[in-house]
Amino acid sequence: MHASPESPAPPALDWLALIRPDLERVEGQLQREAVSAIAAITDINHYLQQGGGKRLRPALLLLAAGACGRAGGELAIRLAAIVEMVHSATLIHDDILDGAETRRGRPATHRKWGAQASVLAGDWLYMQSFRAALRERNFEILEILIELTQKMVEGELRQREMLGTVVAPAEHRELIERKTACLFAAAARLGALAADASPERQRRLGDYGRHLGMAFQMMDDILDYTASEAVLGKPVGGDLREGKMTLPALYAYAGAGAGERAQFEQVMRDGNYAGASFEAILNTVRRHGGLQQARAESRREAELAAACLPDLPDSPYRAALALLPALAVERES
Amino acid sequence: MHASPESPAPPALDWLALIRPDLERVEGQLQREAVSAIAAITDINHYLQQGGGKRLRPALLLLAAGACGRAGGELAIRLAAIVEMVHSATLIHDDILDGAETRRGRPATHRKWGAQASVLAGDWLYMQSFRAALRERNFEILEILIELTQKMVEGELRQREMLGTVVAPAEHRELIERKTACLFAAAARLGALAADASPERQRRLGDYGRHLGMAFQMMDDILDYTASEAVLGKPVGGDLREGKMTLPALYAYAGAGAGERAQFEQVMRDGNYAGASFEAILNTVRRHGGLQQARAESRREAELAAACLPDLPDSPYRAALALLPALAVERES
Repeated sequence: MHASPESPAPPALDWLALIRPDLERVEGQLQREAVSAIAAITDINHYLQQGGGKRLRPALLLLAAGACGRAGGELAIRLAAIVEMVHSATLIHDDILDGAETRRGRPATHRKWGAQASVLAGDWLYMQSFRAALRERNFEILEILIELTQKMVEGELRQREMLGTVVAPAEHRELIERKTACLFAAAARLGALAADASPERQRRLGDYGRHLGMAFQMMDDILDYTASEAVLGKPVGGDLREGKMTLPALYAYAGAGAGERAQFEQVMRDGNYAGASFEAILNTVRRHGGLQQARAESRREAELAAACLPDLPDSPYRAALALLPALAVERES
Repeated sequence: MHASPESPAPPALDWLALIRPDLERVEGQLQREAVSAIAAITDINHYLQQGGGKRLRPALLLLAAGACGRAGGELAIRLAAIVEMVHSATLIHDDILDGAETRRGRPATHRKWGAQASVLAGDWLYMQSFRAALRERNFEILEILIELTQKMVEGELRQREMLGTVVAPAEHRELIERKTACLFAAAARLGALAADASPERQRRLGDYGRHLGMAFQMMDDILDYTASEAVLGKPVGGDLREGKMTLPALYAYAGAGAGERAQFEQVMRDGNYAGASFEAILNTVRRHGGLQQARAESRREAELAAACLPDLPDSPYRAALALLPALAVERES
């Protein structure tokens, strides 16, 4: 389904339409993989699946496969389901550890099934993703997946250690890489692998995914300050309240005075905005250019992502990949 | 290191001495596999390793490999470390879910590092075991391991669902199989695999491990009623207090009157022996033959285990495997 080199790019590319039928096949695959001998696990999996996630990672994988000349292949569908399962497993465990009340506007898994069943359902889902990967009888896929999950778990633990503390932006960047970007990298890379792309092209698409993931997560952290609650679907300012100093806060903190710094610390210590209002914090973040610097860095990552694409042949899939970084940093939710 | 068929079995076989040097190599391997980029994970792993576990599963694997004619091979050492890592990962998560205070006489991991870090350290350890298995470039090993871990996680969840309830002994047996026996089965089978034994012999040794594990766990459940606290290293009667009706209780309950039954239910509901003393419960368990029936069943499993060995060539390793089932059901702690 390559566009010929002469065909002009559509004026407003509906990138989602390109892969909508494939994403539906991914849903079918997820449904099949969700079934356990233990009813509660199946229930939790289906609850998660119906939660209306954006399926960004499967979409990325499918687009990468398409851009490498093999749109809609069976292997890409199966791998897309696998990366989504990994993502779901991390969400279950993270929500428990965060004590999150909601996820995508509904009660978090552990609020409905309890922390105990949810820890185990998360374990099960990790293993199910490995089991599905094992069926492919391809060591490279397993290698990518196992390295990925371990890196993500290490990232989550590192985040716990950093809670309530102020770290250097570089250290925070490493955290984002582990928590978000390496799964985006794996998704894009596995898409290229599913299309039998050259190792070099797989690597480049992995880099694309990594930069896209960095841009995406930085923007997420910015939106936690700037979005409205209605748009975000959860209270703003949640990161700081949970003790997480993200880039906007870290950059502002670096330039802030002692009194302003104390406000950040108080919110993290109290776990609420009773002692220092969200408005006061947001003003500080703005005043010291925290949002501006974080946005600049997010855009830089988006540019680095786009720069990984030049050697791909022209196609609507490539055009979609070229569009995503800009969408990631210009979105409002 | 086969004994010739003529050599008589030693009068009292020191089975542990047979594999002591190999178990030390397993410790070295565990030490190397324990290292993560995140210090807390490495610390937790080393804490667990130094906890003085009995290394039953690695021992079983090493003996099985020896009995199949390849004692002390490198692959067996590595696989033995892997099964111990899987075992440790399940212990970490189970202790958190049980709210256990201690493990092997020391504070449980989550008492020292908190539940959050411990959940993640357990995740990491599962993944590290898969990663180590992946290095072997053998799909069969991965298959055994992933199926195993998923079955164990399902068993743990099933146990949660059954807490505080009275189930049929057959259902409890399935639980034991998932929680304990399938890891014993995998260990024995992997030992045979490491020795390049025939598929039939691998299967038979897997069955051996399964029956041994059943016998072992049933005896554990009996000891929770009959051992002294000093010998057991933890308070007796813990299972019932935690809401777990094991075989001795289930058999006794089946024959008990309404008043006696109410006592079991009260302990499980209260989570302590204030309303019905441990002595009263133990008397009921004895009176209705709960211990006797559970012991008989444990011995039956031990016999089934021993019956899986006949086709193995004579050797000290085979003799050790023949001895273990009896040891498992005659032990006092």
